[in-house]
Amino acid sequence: MSEQLQNKRHTLAHLLAAAVLEKYPHAKLTLGPAIDTGFYYDIDFSGGAFPGDNDLKDLQKSMKKLINKWTEFTHEEVSADKAREVFAGNQYKIELINEIEARGETITLYTCGGFTDLCRGGHCEHPNKDIDTSAFKLDKVAGAYWRGDEKNPMLSRIYGLAFDTEEELRAYELRIEEAKKRDHRKLGKEQDLFTFSELVGAGLPLWTPKGTLIRHLLDDYMWRLRSKHGYQRVTIPHITKKDLYETSGHWDKFADELFRIKTREGKEYALKPMNCPHHTQIFDRKPHSYREMPQRYAETTMVYRDEQSGELGGLTRVLSITQDDAHVFCRINQIKEEFDRVWNIVDTFYGTFGFGDMRVRLSFHDPESMSSYLGTPETWKIAEDMLREIAESHNADYFEGPGEAAMYGPKLDFMAKDSLGREHQVATIQLDLNLPERFDLTCINEEGKKERIAMIHCAVMGSIERFTAVLFEHLGGNFPLWLSPTQVRIIPVAEAHTQYAAEVHEKLLAVGLRAELDSSKESMGKKIRIAKQERLPYFIVIGDKEVADKKVTLESRDGEAEELPLDVIANHLLAINDTKKM
Amino acid sequence: MSEQLQNKRHTLAHLLAAAVLEKYPHAKLTLGPAIDTGFYYDIDFSGGAFPGDNDLKDLQKSMKKLINKWTEFTHEEVSADKAREVFAGNQYKIELINEIEARGETITLYTCGGFTDLCRGGHCEHPNKDIDTSAFKLDKVAGAYWRGDEKNPMLSRIYGLAFDTEEELRAYELRIEEAKKRDHRKLGKEQDLFTFSELVGAGLPLWTPKGTLIRHLLDDYMWRLRSKHGYQRVTIPHITKKDLYETSGHWDKFADELFRIKTREGKEYALKPMNCPHHTQIFDRKPHSYREMPQRYAETTMVYRDEQSGELGGLTRVLSITQDDAHVFCRINQIKEEFDRVWNIVDTFYGTFGFGDMRVRLSFHDPESMSSYLGTPETWKIAEDMLREIAESHNADYFEGPGEAAMYGPKLDFMAKDSLGREHQVATIQLDLNLPERFDLTCINEEGKKERIAMIHCAVMGSIERFTAVLFEHLGGNFPLWLSPTQVRIIPVAEAHTQYAAEVHEKLLAVGLRAELDSSKESMGKKIRIAKQERLPYFIVIGDKEVADKKVTLESRDGEAEELPLDVIANHLLAINDTKKM
Repeated sequence: MSEQLQNKRHTLAHLLAAAVLEKYPHAKLTLGPAIDTGFYYDIDFSGGAFPGDNDLKDLQKSMKKLINKWTEFTHEEVSADKAREVFAGNQYKIELINEIEARGETITLYTCGGFTDLCRGGHCEHPNKDIDTSAFKLDKVAGAYWRGDEKNPMLSRIYGLAFDTEEELRAYELRIEEAKKRDHRKLGKEQDLFTFSELVGAGLPLWTPKGTLIRHLLDDYMWRLRSKHGYQRVTIPHITKKDLYETSGHWDKFADELFRIKTREGKEYALKPMNCPHHTQIFDRKPHSYREMPQRYAETTMVYRDEQSGELGGLTRVLSITQDDAHVFCRINQIKEEFDRVWNIVDTFYGTFGFGDMRVRLSFHDPESMSSYLGTPETWKIAEDMLREIAESHNADYFEGPGEAAMYGPKLDFMAKDSLGREHQVATIQLDLNLPERFDLTCINEEGKKERIAMIHCAVMGSIERFTAVLFEHLGGNFPLWLSPTQVRIIPVAEAHTQYAAEVHEKLLAVGLRAELDSSKESMGKKIRIAKQERLPYFIVIGDKEVADKKVTLESRDGEAEELPLDVIANHLLAINDTKKM
Repeated sequence: MSEQLQNKRHTLAHLLAAAVLEKYPHAKLTLGPAIDTGFYYDIDFSGGAFPGDNDLKDLQKSMKKLINKWTEFTHEEVSADKAREVFAGNQYKIELINEIEARGETITLYTCGGFTDLCRGGHCEHPNKDIDTSAFKLDKVAGAYWRGDEKNPMLSRIYGLAFDTEEELRAYELRIEEAKKRDHRKLGKEQDLFTFSELVGAGLPLWTPKGTLIRHLLDDYMWRLRSKHGYQRVTIPHITKKDLYETSGHWDKFADELFRIKTREGKEYALKPMNCPHHTQIFDRKPHSYREMPQRYAETTMVYRDEQSGELGGLTRVLSITQDDAHVFCRINQIKEEFDRVWNIVDTFYGTFGFGDMRVRLSFHDPESMSSYLGTPETWKIAEDMLREIAESHNADYFEGPGEAAMYGPKLDFMAKDSLGREHQVATIQLDLNLPERFDLTCINEEGKKERIAMIHCAVMGSIERFTAVLFEHLGGNFPLWLSPTQVRIIPVAEAHTQYAAEVHEKLLAVGLRAELDSSKESMGKKIRIAKQERLPYFIVIGDKEVADKKVTLESRDGEAEELPLDVIANHLLAINDTKKM
């Protein structure tokens, strides 16, 4: 956000505080920053009444009235003692003042329209002129602990939205509204894609026939892309003796998130939180000549992580995570080419769904906490330099994210922008020089000697649960034809048309299209309404005219209609169906 | 086995005992019955030397010498006291005598060739004439606890093979030898299909690219068969809160075999040992009209059972069991048709692999131990009567197996005979009137009222692990073309032929055949030897003649050869490839 907008938002936080004090004199102000979409102020109302969402309109009115007198900000530097005097009785401000004093920094008070606050500055110079009062709005009240710590008192956080113009505010509100409509949990229920059960538990989605079909279609597509690049599928169980994770390091470094199992014989197992250690054991079943390198293993399989239940929600945070995982075992001089292959797959796959150009985060280690990682600073430098080079060679829009690495190596994380402009972390390619050390993975080189190899981890969808959540919202439930559980519905107008409708139905089924015949007793109007509500890509209404002319009219959910002879309809749809990039 | 053969085998057990006592006078005889392939005798040698496998030849020689004097069996009834006197010092025989006495039964001693044993009878009348001495053979020595109880002393069990004729003995030995050659663990390693890792643990197979390809091909085939019958795929996680299994009854009745998980928040989960409870939750996500019934869910997924580690071996007993599972939710009057559909799938699938006519076991409950089952005797009777009727209507070769039912209902278990004549339990169809009660599953019937439904559980392969073990041994590693990981290998004779070889290779790849080009530096002879060892269905040798004539010679692993023009080879193979019954 521009500094100017930041200043407006910060100013509005002051204005909100002034309006609050007018109406709730017992309120104790704490902190009120600018945020991405506006501002908030955290306030302790425990001494009396406190506002709810219904009171925000009044507060907003007060703000708009008050602002007329907010002609100019002034500020003064004061001593800590003076500041403590000004805010006597407000333990929050006193705490802040004491901290500024301890750091030896200057304490400043900012005043406008008769309202004074402890502040570092960063306001509009002339709020009454600079701020368009139709471009802000109080949004909601939420609870928040003082300084985010649940041991501290609970405060009320009043949120405001604020933009430069009313138009921008409305656009943002529309986007939020659209996002709510597109919420994948809502779409999932409406389109009957997945469900949850109280008995099975939160974070454990159950996929219906329609949802499962979409999962299979996505995974089949992914497999076709990978297959072109020489990947082979492998299969592993979901558990392992702890020995595997002691060797890999997961037993220590991934400890919190492991689901542990003790058998009736007292043996210790864990549910896999990742697939890499198992895959090393397949690679390591026999020696590999350099001629057989690289070996590219792919497997779509569920991993399990013990997330805290407060963090679970919809498909975005689950306990059972389906990864479209792959591991490449290659020589050091093959790393670049293998990264290029995956990058190609990522571009093709996301291109198919119309995700905008992706940003790339170089997720590096945090040198301050080496104990969270395997390996030495030297290995990390080598691996991270390679990733930077690869990102450069792809002319990627990249940035570095220290502390975002995997336990075993740095990552290239792809960030896709959806149709509402929101950015999501999606695909990941990771370079790992550490697990090959720990599992002593080698190939036999040209000299007949063992040579240490590298591992590349990559998941293109990442997790099918999170990817489908993003995809459902990105598409707003309007799946492309190839991905729609029901592709065409045939709607006979009356009893007399069912025979011809059945003929059309058969023709579509025969070429493998997922066509349905709606032979229910509902009225044609209602049948069409239902088809549109379900966002079916196409429907075909069969009436007298169609029967007489041996034609069909193909209508799309977007309102387009096309009349076609019966004998071309199937091929016409098949041609539209194949829109996946390869 | 015929009574006559049974008598011969039992007689040979006596003869063995006599030969043993001659050579090991300190031996204490215990029990020596006839068994399926011959006989054994359990003997306590703890008082002195005991025979190993190397001593069996000598014992066998003694038996063949002794038998000449075994002209006739005589027997006498004796009092318990008299019997105890005869076997004084042999605590095993004394224990047996005491038991016979306690039951109030007659005690008999049988004597032949001067050797007397405590026995109920059942011998050849004239061993020296009735027994063909070339038709028996001592086989091996193994350990066995007295009466199978590990708290008792360990005895030596000497096994003998015995048949009516030498020819039958040889045939049996050949079959055993062939079975060893075909052992799926051996084939799995030779053909690189699966592997185990010490770090991951016993009972947890890791499937290589080739093995995984076979799994996918089998599962795709199964899905095509099911899809024809209106099945739909669903997807569930591998864990659940214990609540699901408290409702289903698994928490109690399946307790020993559950892998239990306690989370860091102290919640209790379990790894699923079956899929049915999860699938009920998908069915139950919304009400179903009778018009939507039946709902047929299919899912190939791993289940986990805490087997004791002593029981694990190869693919036949694993902790991670991949079930090709399906559950049909149907009205009571739809049960018969749904069973017929599955029966049809079972017949088609097993027919494809040439498994002989299958016997069917009606696996019923054991009325003596109702506590192991859900539901009432009345419900069980209804369900079991239905299964008997269904088996009748299919003219099945069926038999009843009391005590073999699932916890929730009776089963139709299919027993397939493999190419070595061994019988394996494979597919299962189960009728369940209990889980629908426990989960309150209904449909809305024609009167708009809730109507209790039934569930049918069916797994056609059963477990992919056990099925592939059976299949690998049944086929002896000679996979049909469509199931072979590598279908054709192209072998250029010399450098000069590689270009044409590559052309042939491309033609085969282009139509989706799994063709390989062997461009290694090995001699042609060795390349052909390797292709045959790997049991590849076909290989193609490319030499001068092939290049000149634009032809290829397709050679099969069975030694058949066929010369074909280059442009028909791909289609020729495709035609052979499609041998799956549908």
